[in-house]
Amino acid sequence: MQRRSFIKNAALGATASLGAIAAPALAQSTPTINWRLASSFPKSLDTIFGGSERMCKRISELTGGKFNIRAFPGGEIVPPFEVMGAVQNGTVEMAHTVSQYFSGVDSAFTFDSGLPFGLNSRQQTAWFEKGGGKELLREFFKEYGIINFMGGNTGTQMGGFFRKEINTVADINGLKFRIGGMAGRIFEKLGAVPQQIPAGDVYSALEKGTIDAAEFVGPFDDEKLGFNKVAPYYYAPGWWDAGPQESFYVGIKAWDQLPKEYQAALETATYETHVQIQAQYDAANPAALARILKNGGQLRWFSKEIMEECYKLSNELFLTEAERNPRFKKILDPWLRFRDDSNQWFSVAEGPMQNFLASVK
Amino acid sequence: MQRRSFIKNAALGATASLGAIAAPALAQSTPTINWRLASSFPKSLDTIFGGSERMCKRISELTGGKFNIRAFPGGEIVPPFEVMGAVQNGTVEMAHTVSQYFSGVDSAFTFDSGLPFGLNSRQQTAWFEKGGGKELLREFFKEYGIINFMGGNTGTQMGGFFRKEINTVADINGLKFRIGGMAGRIFEKLGAVPQQIPAGDVYSALEKGTIDAAEFVGPFDDEKLGFNKVAPYYYAPGWWDAGPQESFYVGIKAWDQLPKEYQAALETATYETHVQIQAQYDAANPAALARILKNGGQLRWFSKEIMEECYKLSNELFLTEAERNPRFKKILDPWLRFRDDSNQWFSVAEGPMQNFLASVK
Repeated sequence: MQRRSFIKNAALGATASLGAIAAPALAQSTPTINWRLASSFPKSLDTIFGGSERMCKRISELTGGKFNIRAFPGGEIVPPFEVMGAVQNGTVEMAHTVSQYFSGVDSAFTFDSGLPFGLNSRQQTAWFEKGGGKELLREFFKEYGIINFMGGNTGTQMGGFFRKEINTVADINGLKFRIGGMAGRIFEKLGAVPQQIPAGDVYSALEKGTIDAAEFVGPFDDEKLGFNKVAPYYYAPGWWDAGPQESFYVGIKAWDQLPKEYQAALETATYETHVQIQAQYDAANPAALARILKNGGQLRWFSKEIMEECYKLSNELFLTEAERNPRFKKILDPWLRFRDDSNQWFSVAEGPMQNFLASVK
Repeated sequence: MQRRSFIKNAALGATASLGAIAAPALAQSTPTINWRLASSFPKSLDTIFGGSERMCKRISELTGGKFNIRAFPGGEIVPPFEVMGAVQNGTVEMAHTVSQYFSGVDSAFTFDSGLPFGLNSRQQTAWFEKGGGKELLREFFKEYGIINFMGGNTGTQMGGFFRKEINTVADINGLKFRIGGMAGRIFEKLGAVPQQIPAGDVYSALEKGTIDAAEFVGPFDDEKLGFNKVAPYYYAPGWWDAGPQESFYVGIKAWDQLPKEYQAALETATYETHVQIQAQYDAANPAALARILKNGGQLRWFSKEIMEECYKLSNELFLTEAERNPRFKKILDPWLRFRDDSNQWFSVAEGPMQNFLASVK
């Protein structure tokens, strides 16, 4: 999709969202407003989709039952990877998704979720909330007729399930790996063949050897897919998803028509959801990992050689993208400074503390 | 303070908070309600005290200006270390503090902020929100007539400023160290002399050599105190504060009288504040650390020998406390399981990712 037509569609569709508020209601301070939220995630993901449902319930409570948003799972009213466009053209007022999915539309979208070797979840939140990220991203999203809010984080993800061990950079050559986005482009440079396969078909593709590896999220979500039965090597870390953030996107036209009190309710509720989604992942992952390992999964870590080569390639990719896309460059420069400064500080107290605790048990 | 008299005071004072709601207002669905919040923190801490002020503003916005809470800095209406009692006896409806301060009243309070070698900030949030912590803590706080909410986290703190290098366990013997709570008891077992000195007197005590070391928070807060000028060795990590949580405490009687919509507003706003306080620390600490180092501070890390000895002593202290206090024991057992499981998971993806990023820059 081209950026220009994407924006054009938004302008055409913007009036559609006006219909959500009945004209007489505009005169009241607390009108009844009904919105629809299109999620990219299935109902089975209680963490993320469940989180958006709980947010809707909270917004209703905060407004005395007047402002109601109904969340629809991915595909029910909008295909999972088209929710951003649906917000733009006013088909729905709100979406819950991961900005990475839209990096093909504009690579600068990626900063709202995370880049390879990017910020961990606390750093991502700090950058967004108090490190200048919100201002940069809101300016960017405004071009698309959208206002963005944080909507959860999975923490550092796993690197996926592999049929064979991958020890050296050379082992990546020819690897058929189900992975997308910027990480796919980096693996491609090392000779891998990134694959796009619908989630439901991955298991049989791995079993038959049509593909050699597949990545998804972390133990709690991965466990449901059962990949460990056909591809036992469970690699860490998912360096392309160091702290991937989920986001809520709201059409600016719809947003601007909300009473201030409803805006406050929506924005405040997104923080609660942001906390709860991460907390649910953090609380559920340990037991899920233990079950995966009990059922044949074997933990492996990407070697230093692989990590360093991929890190080098990711930095090159950032520069290529910055040359190609001024919107990417504008966010990249301050983002890189924030990342480096933050990693230095995290290596002083937070890192040594965690390393010690890992060493004693 | 004895637990029994603490509770007794609460019962006596509970009716005081009834005054906050005018009788006719009770009949309305959106009465005007005014509360006072007593903070343990000074106005100069924009992170924590500023966070509570922003929360009050948000709650007012969410309720159309009807539910107003005014935040008072530590000492202005209640002494910093007496805010818990003030909530109990209805002097104020709400407090913002760190539960550790009240470990002398009941050691089980400590779990709401954090124990030595305890959970990092993400783990603390996950344990509280989705790991059973909230249920255990609310049951405990109910005995004190209080309902508790998360209210920020500093992340792993620094270990403080030392006049001389501390390399071995033997070097701790005789050390006059400004430190309190459980950590003070652990240092005491190694021959240190824990000191309680008012914040304003620490600089001159360090300068004169009346004390050898002092700990506070992390770079952003520590910088303001200027200790680096008189005690250059800045130690990490503050293993007694791996992820210390701040909390909001509300008197149950006052809480029960709030309309449901105001309860929702207050609770939701605490999540926003929880996110923002941590984000502000995370965004501000890197530059503050750089300035401290530029102005004479020298980074040091506690040796493996010291860390291991203190870890052993902390586990012994937990068991002593569990034998002495059944309320401590009730929370300790599931807390220990959560800590161990979570640290194992964090050492798989999150830890290696951070270690790699620390190694490349």
